[in-house]
Amino acid sequence: MALIVQKFGGSSVKDAECINRVAGIVADTYSEGNDVIVVVSAQGDTTDDLIDKANEINPKHSRREHDMLVSAGEQISIALLAMAIEKLGLPVVSLLGWQAGFSTNSSYTMARIKKIDKERLHNELDAHKIIVVAGFQGLNKYDDITTLGRGGSDTSAVALAAALHADKCQIFTDVTGVYTTDPRKVSGAIKLNEITYDEMLELATCGAQVLNNRSVEMAKKYNVELEVLSSIKREPGTIVKEAIKVEKMLIRGVAKDNDVARISVLKLEDIPGVAFKLFSKLAARKINVDIILQSVGRDGTKDITFTVPEAMAEQAKEATLEAFPNLLDDEVLIDTNVSKISIVGAGMETHPGTASQMFEALYDAGINIQMISTSEIKISVLVAKSDAERAVSAVHESFFPED
Amino acid sequence: MALIVQKFGGSSVKDAECINRVAGIVADTYSEGNDVIVVVSAQGDTTDDLIDKANEINPKHSRREHDMLVSAGEQISIALLAMAIEKLGLPVVSLLGWQAGFSTNSSYTMARIKKIDKERLHNELDAHKIIVVAGFQGLNKYDDITTLGRGGSDTSAVALAAALHADKCQIFTDVTGVYTTDPRKVSGAIKLNEITYDEMLELATCGAQVLNNRSVEMAKKYNVELEVLSSIKREPGTIVKEAIKVEKMLIRGVAKDNDVARISVLKLEDIPGVAFKLFSKLAARKINVDIILQSVGRDGTKDITFTVPEAMAEQAKEATLEAFPNLLDDEVLIDTNVSKISIVGAGMETHPGTASQMFEALYDAGINIQMISTSEIKISVLVAKSDAERAVSAVHESFFPED
Repeated sequence: MALIVQKFGGSSVKDAECINRVAGIVADTYSEGNDVIVVVSAQGDTTDDLIDKANEINPKHSRREHDMLVSAGEQISIALLAMAIEKLGLPVVSLLGWQAGFSTNSSYTMARIKKIDKERLHNELDAHKIIVVAGFQGLNKYDDITTLGRGGSDTSAVALAAALHADKCQIFTDVTGVYTTDPRKVSGAIKLNEITYDEMLELATCGAQVLNNRSVEMAKKYNVELEVLSSIKREPGTIVKEAIKVEKMLIRGVAKDNDVARISVLKLEDIPGVAFKLFSKLAARKINVDIILQSVGRDGTKDITFTVPEAMAEQAKEATLEAFPNLLDDEVLIDTNVSKISIVGAGMETHPGTASQMFEALYDAGINIQMISTSEIKISVLVAKSDAERAVSAVHESFFPED
Repeated sequence: MALIVQKFGGSSVKDAECINRVAGIVADTYSEGNDVIVVVSAQGDTTDDLIDKANEINPKHSRREHDMLVSAGEQISIALLAMAIEKLGLPVVSLLGWQAGFSTNSSYTMARIKKIDKERLHNELDAHKIIVVAGFQGLNKYDDITTLGRGGSDTSAVALAAALHADKCQIFTDVTGVYTTDPRKVSGAIKLNEITYDEMLELATCGAQVLNNRSVEMAKKYNVELEVLSSIKREPGTIVKEAIKVEKMLIRGVAKDNDVARISVLKLEDIPGVAFKLFSKLAARKINVDIILQSVGRDGTKDITFTVPEAMAEQAKEATLEAFPNLLDDEVLIDTNVSKISIVGAGMETHPGTASQMFEALYDAGINIQMISTSEIKISVLVAKSDAERAVSAVHESFFPED
């Protein structure tokens, strides 16, 4: 008998039909002899609807009351799912975050889980009950409700799996698993049977948002085996774990990220400390910098180019002008007409030809590379946004040739 | 400085406009130098909508999950009201039933308050915060959410006022107070300045549902001064308390109750124990019997007639046939075409002419009285449903003549 944690997102429980489908999956897992803990998010657009109501009344409402409000969403979905499981004649109990023992710090709207008190969970499991837990929420030291931030239900599920040493944590989504690239865009996209935590993390930061990053990091830290699978199609998904069987694949996927802006800072003095000055100003504003490229100094000046999320572009420019008050406005250029294309795969560490194969594919497709960045298991390039889809197809076709 | 508990029902917080209006009332009370605790119900139709969702999934859902579900309704309204008060720049905190210390017994959907742990309430009041409490809900000994049943928010408010020795408990509704009869039906209806607990209870059981009965009983027990007033019109309402100033009014109000069925049991044996046999069967099915009339025995038989809530009529007939298996089906008659008209007033105890004045008014209007029942401060008569409105007008005009 295994202990399995199953997590269903908001779209999987959005109406009665969906909830009954989820109840069926849970019931099957339980009836196979497993202990089952189910983590659910709020139904469909409930959270957004509640936030709209709040903003209509007071757009500057406190974060404490925000959490009090939105956490009602999961309360509704756990009760409804429990009722659907009751209908199938199985023993079930729904638990709010605090009832399931989730203690968090006090950062409302973006709380971190500190501890899970397992007493009640163990009691309910000992009574052979299916437990339906409200994801995304916990209680802080003031006995006030906190939420973990968007995507927090994934984190709740992984944290439960880690705390209870579950055999598996299944994350049900609207896709059947993790693909080598977006299957809606590229016909030759291949579903992966397995992927490592690190590859999953790199894919996520490259714009393939199947799993919330914090949950993958936590799974890696506590060695929780994840499975990404569909709540609609009943078929095996993609397993995410530490080490995977060697497959013939050199890379694990090709991802595209359109949420990127390139900032070019021209004619900086070519003296020590320039980069520090710039990036400490950006860090102070909590701006995430991705790719950084510094030109070789010439004529006593140098250029620094970096990328940031698109919404941060104007702020990044402000920070730059703050760091170098002597710069003219047109010496800090913003280009949002760019995309980042990445390939990810633990295999590339031992295959030096990977980068050149990617560059060759782009060259053959006539696509200009603006910037390059590499890590041990990832290569990213910046290309014009208009070239992005073609770039993904070309690179994917090179590494995963269609028969 | 006084401590005032204010309760607002679902229609008073049904949308942003209403919530802002409530926030204004609360803010004014606080700004006058009072400590304020606000108890709110779920918004408008939220509770019914949630129950509809539940019934779509599983009409036979457990009562525990029912309470988990519907209690989300008040969670939403307290957070929204707190946000509206924040906008007015006042310190405020919303508290769920369990955070406000409400312990109940374990009867889901109809729990009774056992105790209020006042520690957190005192802490928040000491910090000069306005406290917004979720009505209708508490926590049982299993740490599971319970609800107090319909109208439970009134009870929550009175219980808080009693526990904290509040100076006043204001119940805001959609009427401006308690009237001598329904002001929408009778133009001469007069708003009462004051009424006693007992009169209020009698009026409520006679169909004038301004306040939930349990809350009035609790207010009487703990001597909590209630005020019934409007959340729309800012004007003094009706004070409900133990003893009131002598007013010229002989009676306090005329009420009509259409939710009544008359059961007539014919040709019962005229021997001892017949009534006991009948009413113990009814009690066993928890059927509330109101007026009882037993004919004088004749020819060795007697008739017993009694009234029950309309929805209980068929059950009452079944219980009767169970008590007397020899009765024929047509010897137990149900008549739902009746209404109960009542006059209530502590003054009638010392005015023996009250009953005859009522009967005279009905006689003058040509209305036949089917049954009569009296208590110390109430006289009820049963009339045909078609005569009910005329009966109310005639009796009201007699006791409260229009100028």
